[in-house]
Amino acid sequence: MLTFTEMIQHPSQWLDASGPFSDIVYSSRIRLARNLKKIPFSHRANDDELRTVFLQAKEAAHETQLLKDALILDLGELDSLDRRVLAERHLISNQMVELYHNRGLVVTPGETLSVMINEEDHFRLQAITSGFNLNEAYEKVNQLDDELGSRLEYAFHDQWGYLTACPTNVGTGMRASVLIHLPGLFITREIDTLIKKIAKKGFVVRGLYGEGSDVKGNFFQISNQQTLGISELETLERLEKYTRELIEQEKAARDRVFQEAKNEIEDKIWRAYGTLKYAHILNSDNMMNLCSLVRLGISSNWIKETDTSRLNELLVFAQPAHLQRLQGQPLNVDERDVIRAKLVRENLDREN
Amino acid sequence: MLTFTEMIQHPSQWLDASGPFSDIVYSSRIRLARNLKKIPFSHRANDDELRTVFLQAKEAAHETQLLKDALILDLGELDSLDRRVLAERHLISNQMVELYHNRGLVVTPGETLSVMINEEDHFRLQAITSGFNLNEAYEKVNQLDDELGSRLEYAFHDQWGYLTACPTNVGTGMRASVLIHLPGLFITREIDTLIKKIAKKGFVVRGLYGEGSDVKGNFFQISNQQTLGISELETLERLEKYTRELIEQEKAARDRVFQEAKNEIEDKIWRAYGTLKYAHILNSDNMMNLCSLVRLGISSNWIKETDTSRLNELLVFAQPAHLQRLQGQPLNVDERDVIRAKLVRENLDREN
Repeated sequence: MLTFTEMIQHPSQWLDASGPFSDIVYSSRIRLARNLKKIPFSHRANDDELRTVFLQAKEAAHETQLLKDALILDLGELDSLDRRVLAERHLISNQMVELYHNRGLVVTPGETLSVMINEEDHFRLQAITSGFNLNEAYEKVNQLDDELGSRLEYAFHDQWGYLTACPTNVGTGMRASVLIHLPGLFITREIDTLIKKIAKKGFVVRGLYGEGSDVKGNFFQISNQQTLGISELETLERLEKYTRELIEQEKAARDRVFQEAKNEIEDKIWRAYGTLKYAHILNSDNMMNLCSLVRLGISSNWIKETDTSRLNELLVFAQPAHLQRLQGQPLNVDERDVIRAKLVRENLDREN
Repeated sequence: MLTFTEMIQHPSQWLDASGPFSDIVYSSRIRLARNLKKIPFSHRANDDELRTVFLQAKEAAHETQLLKDALILDLGELDSLDRRVLAERHLISNQMVELYHNRGLVVTPGETLSVMINEEDHFRLQAITSGFNLNEAYEKVNQLDDELGSRLEYAFHDQWGYLTACPTNVGTGMRASVLIHLPGLFITREIDTLIKKIAKKGFVVRGLYGEGSDVKGNFFQISNQQTLGISELETLERLEKYTRELIEQEKAARDRVFQEAKNEIEDKIWRAYGTLKYAHILNSDNMMNLCSLVRLGISSNWIKETDTSRLNELLVFAQPAHLQRLQGQPLNVDERDVIRAKLVRENLDREN
């Protein structure tokens, strides 16, 4: 059985860049919001009620095929650093780092499937896959939903669909997203226009860590806003379509950049690689921007010393809580920048 | 017998960083201005007279011990690119690149000893040594002066000393200089004050390529101004003293920087190394500044992947004319920046 410590020492499986278009799409993710009938939503539930939700989830999880090997964590039993580690792994929300009493997490080895317990909703089922692979994520989370749904009594309204704590999730309760890397469109300055177009179609564009996070390193999270009056499949179809368009536009932008300023971009990319490989102080923004260029360089077959999975892993392991866990002690910002640089130096290349 | 082509394919011997304090002092150089009696100074001499000077120099050179293996070049027989190569090797002046008719160069294998013929003066004898080694340079150039002086009738005035084309050289006719690398004093912002102090003492501070060249990469050429009413030995003693003081001040500055901002300077140095190692476009200024940091890193025992002699050599071989000679064709500025980066990538590390 996997322990928490073992889990966080290893990269999440979906970081392995094995999925389709993983040179452009970092990950695909689907999250379903579900709640139990007869128990108030988490923010209104008392301790006993929250405990009941947690226990029911645990019991149901044990009975499922998909979660039978999963790790079940009581967030109240973890320290705040470990909770932040989970948030950096996209397994719990930032809110749960602070609001952890009677909150839990069920997570499979490899972390492709997980369930947040007593976040905004009683359950948030999540599937993450590598690259552009919404279908696989949807299939997995759907299977998990079936398995759990047959054991738990979900709050469901014939007309409205799944009932959720926040009205914006009512209906399908589904949030589908892709995390996409668009350095080409950033360089050609097309990105803002395209982002605005997508926003007009009812999709939300955010940074690497979702709600409230800035866009860094040209990583954009694109997710659906609408959950009511639209089916899951229609939502997925539309997100698929916009993502596919963005991939094509990104490829065209890269081609254009490589044609018009090959030397300049090659120079930028290799300097970024050299800097990552040798820097002794690396703040988070600087690292993200350098990784963005190196990722582009790998995708263009210029850089063969490292690969996309290495960079994906570093993006997680160089986050503040991971660094402090790695070092086994609290670190201030300056110390983190030094340890981050060391981590990157030692892990950037494949041979290491 | 050495050919011109062979010579310029190899680095000058004094670039090998074998001399004292060569982590701080790039080179020591002494130049003596000498003229023949009865023949007008070069700028007033006609073709026949210039030819006579050249022929007499050739003949005398053949008879000496020190120049018997030397290469004797007629600058009029070289193309302008090759003349620029010689200027980049500190063997002829920039003026001689353009004014080459009946001008010549005698240069020993290794290029530690040379004689410019029909520059401003009929003869300019030069000795360059690695590091801080004015004595060796003086001994060599002095021996050469004795050997040539016994064969050529120098213009010498009992009261004034050696007569030269420009009054500023009359007397000893000697210009002694050190080329010193002062990144520590640049970082601590002490450099300007110290430079002004030296200038007040009658010494001139210039850039890497002497008169009219900018200070780049924290390389400073310091040379005496006075040649009249002061002996060679006194001049050398004073230059020795100021250089020794600068070395001490530079060391103290480095210690202070390393103590007060070790991480920051280490980061800067390693980023510079990474950038040099991977850049695909490298203009001259950028290269000089990066090399300056890497040189500091080698001197501080942080960087062991490369050494000072590599950097010394690159500073010469990455100059425009050398790059074009290497590539075998004329290159515009943008092309040079690409070839320069390639040269540095391929030659920065010792193992290459």
